[in-house]
Amino acid sequence: MQGFPPPVDKRIQQPESDFFSFPKMRWTVCHIRELMPTKQVSRGLTAPVPLSYALDDGIDAVTFTPTGANSPMRWDDSLAHNYTDGILILHNGQVVYEEYSGCLNETGKHAAMSMTKSLIGLLAEMLVSDQLLDPDASVASIIPALKDSAFGNASAREVMDMTTSLNYSEDYADPNADIWQYSKAASPLPKARDYRGPNGYFDYLTTVKSDGKHGKVFAYKTVNTDVLGWIISTVSGQDVASLLSERLWRPLGMEQDAYMTVDGIGTPFAGGGLSAGLRDLGRLGLLLLNDGMLQQKRLVKASVIDSIRQGGDKNAFAQAGYKSLPGGSYRSMWWVLHNAHGAYAARGVHGQTLYIDPTANMVIVRFASHPTAKNSANDPTSLPAYQAVAEYLMQQSMQRAAESNE
Amino acid sequence: MQGFPPPVDKRIQQPESDFFSFPKMRWTVCHIRELMPTKQVSRGLTAPVPLSYALDDGIDAVTFTPTGANSPMRWDDSLAHNYTDGILILHNGQVVYEEYSGCLNETGKHAAMSMTKSLIGLLAEMLVSDQLLDPDASVASIIPALKDSAFGNASAREVMDMTTSLNYSEDYADPNADIWQYSKAASPLPKARDYRGPNGYFDYLTTVKSDGKHGKVFAYKTVNTDVLGWIISTVSGQDVASLLSERLWRPLGMEQDAYMTVDGIGTPFAGGGLSAGLRDLGRLGLLLLNDGMLQQKRLVKASVIDSIRQGGDKNAFAQAGYKSLPGGSYRSMWWVLHNAHGAYAARGVHGQTLYIDPTANMVIVRFASHPTAKNSANDPTSLPAYQAVAEYLMQQSMQRAAESNE
Repeated sequence: MQGFPPPVDKRIQQPESDFFSFPKMRWTVCHIRELMPTKQVSRGLTAPVPLSYALDDGIDAVTFTPTGANSPMRWDDSLAHNYTDGILILHNGQVVYEEYSGCLNETGKHAAMSMTKSLIGLLAEMLVSDQLLDPDASVASIIPALKDSAFGNASAREVMDMTTSLNYSEDYADPNADIWQYSKAASPLPKARDYRGPNGYFDYLTTVKSDGKHGKVFAYKTVNTDVLGWIISTVSGQDVASLLSERLWRPLGMEQDAYMTVDGIGTPFAGGGLSAGLRDLGRLGLLLLNDGMLQQKRLVKASVIDSIRQGGDKNAFAQAGYKSLPGGSYRSMWWVLHNAHGAYAARGVHGQTLYIDPTANMVIVRFASHPTAKNSANDPTSLPAYQAVAEYLMQQSMQRAAESNE
Repeated sequence: MQGFPPPVDKRIQQPESDFFSFPKMRWTVCHIRELMPTKQVSRGLTAPVPLSYALDDGIDAVTFTPTGANSPMRWDDSLAHNYTDGILILHNGQVVYEEYSGCLNETGKHAAMSMTKSLIGLLAEMLVSDQLLDPDASVASIIPALKDSAFGNASAREVMDMTTSLNYSEDYADPNADIWQYSKAASPLPKARDYRGPNGYFDYLTTVKSDGKHGKVFAYKTVNTDVLGWIISTVSGQDVASLLSERLWRPLGMEQDAYMTVDGIGTPFAGGGLSAGLRDLGRLGLLLLNDGMLQQKRLVKASVIDSIRQGGDKNAFAQAGYKSLPGGSYRSMWWVLHNAHGAYAARGVHGQTLYIDPTANMVIVRFASHPTAKNSANDPTSLPAYQAVAEYLMQQSMQRAAESNE
């Protein structure tokens, strides 16, 4: 949107097919709440826990070779290439790099897209460690309303790792894909008078049919996360936005409230509805990197983070054919790279990333609005770039250590 | 909403006629953002400025006689009587009373309804004192698009004081009243395919026709505030939500972000779209009570507050026939009581109040969800109650002063 009020050709408004089109989407990703109903994820009322800074000008000049390319690219050039709206790098617990562009600034919030799933997965692991959720329990035993759906005889773990077998298509390119019925059910807009379908996420989930045996193949389908949202809401007695506030946003001393989009009956969109500040996802990254500690305080049991880091079933993952993540796995809604650094990540369409590299003691948060939804479009100029920055930062640390020993 | 997910008969959702019906409205007033698109009013990222506390248990037992009644009522009984969701009393700069009930809690935000207007009026007065806005300028000279509307030849001051003469009915009881066309234009929901009317607040405002000479009679019509919102956005270059953030929410050290509802093209609803935390309106009340100072810092010029406190044209006001506010006036979107204490107030339907009593050095903020929209329904058990509490607090101060002199 440009100008105030914006001229007709610059307006961004409902329906969704308009506001998520490129280039309008570059504005939309920072302004989701201005287009849709949302629920607050409260940070509480206390002073935020400050991040400490040790900015490193050298990062811009780090070079890497994009996957499949012949010539190197500079880090700073990669940012525009990937339509980066905000990027934060934390190393040894300090912010070493922070940039905003596009629609984002330090008091703004950006759509996290499917990174939301990883936060829901983290909450689920926390409830497992609190013995409120048994990962081996069947979904039907937790949510009787899902008994006759595909999810009924799946275990909570199969839902968490997306190894359920569902007769459900999430191919956005196919106008007959089930995802469109799902979107229609989930829309917070009033339903058309002749609409007879399900109303809201939960209503829809009860209609999903099975496609075989669970537990064999990883299949990335957002409905799993909404089932997981329903599961953790049931065992905790709180909707996922409230749970995110109580379990993460308040204890981590976040500096901004976050928010989640909701369906027509107020259910937050566990599969992708979060918008949050860049630094606050940085705080979350530090919590994971430090095995559940933040600022010398234990907020989450180390076993929770371990369960995620260890990764999921590599064979199940290999069958899904993610070319930019060879040898990877998916565990509790996190993408585990199984690379030399033991990196794992939350990822969302159009380039959203929370990338954790335990070896380099580094966290990268990136918000972006890449015209292509699939991350395979930006991975070639992202994943090698993250690795190169990790190596650069490790080298810097070693150099400083060597100098202080001289 | 009760239960998770709520059963069908407990659901609260679009359309507006459903969610603002009683008793559903008692939930809605704390959850506007979950039903409609909204724009953030950022508090910034710093630590909130704390309020200091000196709670006074004696207030509950204060009695008063409701207007027109024969028997007295206790203060604490008046709260349930008025469907109070949150009430805060500040005296001599400290919180002496704070209660939450209904849908509200300390991290919640409540619809301010038409109290929003008073904040817009305050911003306008601030821009006047900054010489960015000339109150004598015609609206057409500031917003050429309004030249042919009723507002074109009105002065900014006439808009601020609602003494414009408009051929426009805001009688919610009349299904043919203009307010319904306005609501349709302003709805953020996608327009019906055959809709040919204006889109958004501003589009609609250009269509309002004149009903005679401006400046003679006070007529409470929300469209004035939306014109004023457009005026202050034009002279400041910022939409009103951003302006509220920059001029009030950040400098006052508010503890919560607030938000405003928006129309389909993103224009915040100046006439009534704000939702905010109880204590944050308390901070705003202190700023007014202390002539523009907060915590020993001057944030607003004293002349700004003076301009509001002095009141508007009493004759113009008398002709509007507000029985519960005899001898009052309306100035810069504030209700000035012209009572012995020099009290003035921001007021919104269903019982919203920010009441400032300079003589008693007292601020009262009340959020409520009274089934009756018009404040004439709750004024009889509110205005005398505020006066009684003011007198009680003054007496307490005198007693303490006397004791310390003994």
